[in-house]
Amino acid sequence: MLLYQQLMEDTARLIERGVLKPGEKIPSVRAICRQRGISQSTVLEAYHRLEDRGLIEARPRSGYVVSAHWRQLPQEPRTARVSTGTRTVDVADLVFGILESTRNRAVVPLGSAFPSPLLFPLPALARLLGAVARKLDPWMTVADLPPGSWELRRQIVKRYLGCGVRLDVEDIVITSGAAEALNLCLQAVTQPGDIVAVESPTFYGCLQALQRQGVRALEIPTHPRDGVDLAQLERALDKHRVKACWFMTSLSNPLGCSMPEARKQALVELLARRAIPLIEDDVYAELYFGSQAPRPAKAFDRSGLVLHCGSFAKCLAPGYRVGWAAPGRFTRELARLKFINSISTNIPAQEALAAYLAKGGYEFHLRRLRQALQSQQNRMLEAIARYFPDQVRVTRPQGGYFLWLELPEGTDALALQKRATELGISIAPGPLFSASRRFGNCLRLNCGHPWSPRLDEALRTLGQLAHGGKTAPC
Amino acid sequence: MLLYQQLMEDTARLIERGVLKPGEKIPSVRAICRQRGISQSTVLEAYHRLEDRGLIEARPRSGYVVSAHWRQLPQEPRTARVSTGTRTVDVADLVFGILESTRNRAVVPLGSAFPSPLLFPLPALARLLGAVARKLDPWMTVADLPPGSWELRRQIVKRYLGCGVRLDVEDIVITSGAAEALNLCLQAVTQPGDIVAVESPTFYGCLQALQRQGVRALEIPTHPRDGVDLAQLERALDKHRVKACWFMTSLSNPLGCSMPEARKQALVELLARRAIPLIEDDVYAELYFGSQAPRPAKAFDRSGLVLHCGSFAKCLAPGYRVGWAAPGRFTRELARLKFINSISTNIPAQEALAAYLAKGGYEFHLRRLRQALQSQQNRMLEAIARYFPDQVRVTRPQGGYFLWLELPEGTDALALQKRATELGISIAPGPLFSASRRFGNCLRLNCGHPWSPRLDEALRTLGQLAHGGKTAPC
Repeated sequence: MLLYQQLMEDTARLIERGVLKPGEKIPSVRAICRQRGISQSTVLEAYHRLEDRGLIEARPRSGYVVSAHWRQLPQEPRTARVSTGTRTVDVADLVFGILESTRNRAVVPLGSAFPSPLLFPLPALARLLGAVARKLDPWMTVADLPPGSWELRRQIVKRYLGCGVRLDVEDIVITSGAAEALNLCLQAVTQPGDIVAVESPTFYGCLQALQRQGVRALEIPTHPRDGVDLAQLERALDKHRVKACWFMTSLSNPLGCSMPEARKQALVELLARRAIPLIEDDVYAELYFGSQAPRPAKAFDRSGLVLHCGSFAKCLAPGYRVGWAAPGRFTRELARLKFINSISTNIPAQEALAAYLAKGGYEFHLRRLRQALQSQQNRMLEAIARYFPDQVRVTRPQGGYFLWLELPEGTDALALQKRATELGISIAPGPLFSASRRFGNCLRLNCGHPWSPRLDEALRTLGQLAHGGKTAPC
Repeated sequence: MLLYQQLMEDTARLIERGVLKPGEKIPSVRAICRQRGISQSTVLEAYHRLEDRGLIEARPRSGYVVSAHWRQLPQEPRTARVSTGTRTVDVADLVFGILESTRNRAVVPLGSAFPSPLLFPLPALARLLGAVARKLDPWMTVADLPPGSWELRRQIVKRYLGCGVRLDVEDIVITSGAAEALNLCLQAVTQPGDIVAVESPTFYGCLQALQRQGVRALEIPTHPRDGVDLAQLERALDKHRVKACWFMTSLSNPLGCSMPEARKQALVELLARRAIPLIEDDVYAELYFGSQAPRPAKAFDRSGLVLHCGSFAKCLAPGYRVGWAAPGRFTRELARLKFINSISTNIPAQEALAAYLAKGGYEFHLRRLRQALQSQQNRMLEAIARYFPDQVRVTRPQGGYFLWLELPEGTDALALQKRATELGISIAPGPLFSASRRFGNCLRLNCGHPWSPRLDEALRTLGQLAHGGKTAPC
């Protein structure tokens, strides 16, 4: 290909892919000469031909711009991927496949991990964000470095009081969502090669964090209502050199189970006797349906071994990416790891959330949110009862927005997922939630979206698939 | 290059090469107008900037003369010799000590890594942030999951065009600042126990990331003006199984050196022959003082082995924590690691920065910022020449906001730091920048703050400490 042709094709691609939009300037002739080390006449040759093709036009005094007439063409079709033969399942591919479908609004998001963003007071938060950012003292960009905004940490400490945990502002480290907090806590208490006890089934984000850190997962049987089996945990601790536990003690993902408070206390005491840290993933803490906030294991922590992690992502501000850790005796280490991992958390967002919590209105929002989630859960439970085979078993979480289904023995959730995906419905198959690929006949459904005929129809379709029946595209 | 820039560069060269000596007249404005056929205002623009840079000064009735201070600037430092062999790293206490003092407004922030937040258009950004957040489609909280906002990635791709790098929107992953991007890139290309080649001196954030990932640092001698010594690098690659390189190829921290473009190209080709990835930390890319954006090593990458990392933190939006990676063949892996590490980057901030870049005004801000930094650097160079011992050597970075000082042999920078801290002045001692605690007689000073009597006084105090003299509290 000649030099001018190369330049022509490169520039055409930038325009066709929308990198350069109608009306925008394209690089000047002089800039291209310098960048590519080619002559002015070569560049002009390319640009004149692009002009002929109607992609660009010359503007007096300002060089060339993308033609206003240009409109993006429909995308080219892609080659369909076809699976050949059997495969071992990789959690990463499953997780990111579901994430991709979550992003696609045409897919019914029953496999998504996110609740509907329409359930949150995003407009009110946006007004505060603008107001707070405009008034922000520029020096806060330095002052709010880890451990983070003093005012936000103060507000978080006040909320901890409401669920029976007494902390100081200095005990909190602000992070970019709970995901960062959990990853850093894991790093603070383990080394590659260590063993960490997890629930079974386990949140796949936990499995991914473990894998990334080079840590091995030890699955502890977990009751669908009452959480981790402590007798089995104790036997596992006797048998293995467990370096830490990572449990969701309230409203776990995917089971939705909550350990009774007495069991949480027993867990904390058991681990304290053996000096084993507990990473307590409590991101659904605010989404309880009962009248009282359940106390986390952190409420019973006397030895500083509980690293409690929370977030505003699931209860107030999706997309703001503000979470925190209350890491007990590991607080200093965690602030350092936070600084190394990402310097600080977005500062206008920290201050806007602090202002929202100070202003009041959070409790009102939470009450409405919990009611919405409970109503949606009820509708989905009813639909499952109506459409699914009689032998299906399903959890009754006392909060959150997940249901866990156990389908008749022999059902292949991965095959079901494949069929559902073809019909425009995402689901989260059981093997996603196990390091040892268990739960082959289980699936997690998201009930975090307002009930609609579209959801009802999707549940009906899933029910038919579970029956092994045939169905028309949904 | 604009006419005034050409004149400015020509005149600066005459002075720096000693053709024009201190106290000598430079050609009159009228003479230059006649010689070059340019307007009087163009000549004045050039001369005013040379005045800002401290190269010339106006004399009543006799026009401009070469500044008397000029020749007195200290010499540049030499390339340090580096002991071969890899090292495990521990700089945490030094780094976090300085971070703590950075947060204290009463301390003169010469050791800080951050420029003054007053240099940035924070009010304009805040207005955009509020406006964008209020209009935000709630579903963007899902759509902007990794790799991140399409519109922001598009704007970044357009800026890459300006420095000779052609990328697609799909080649960019948005991160929570460059720190996250760099950590994830390191994780994408190394395993614990691997060896990574770094500059010497090295940015301590790099050393911390290596330590955290369990990776060993191999220090490569680095020239204070031209960057990494490629011959030495090649010998090191022959001797050690280097898994990756992590270099700041332009305006490095702490040296402020930039590899010439030919050397960048040679580096990329050398590494491509050996299939070794290059993590290119380019966070100061926009802070060049010259008239042209330097091309990064990424501009010469044909094999997808360059993982280029950038950020808005140092050039536009401190505290917003938005950066990115252009990770070549590791892009898919990096998007996955980003999701595992922190799900996504703050979404209102992503969209606000995209809106700022689309709106225009960025170039104007950058020109003003660069001028401010250059003027501050000149003032600090002069103060160092005035106050420090004759044997001091100091860098002449062509951008950024750091100076690197080599004090007389035998000076103990850590002891100097201790004394300075007692007097309310922070500095960054040399051993912070080396896995093997070298550079015991060096220090890094921040010239990212508007010049003030307080800074002048602090430099005077530091100079006295460097002389070994006594001083009163500042």
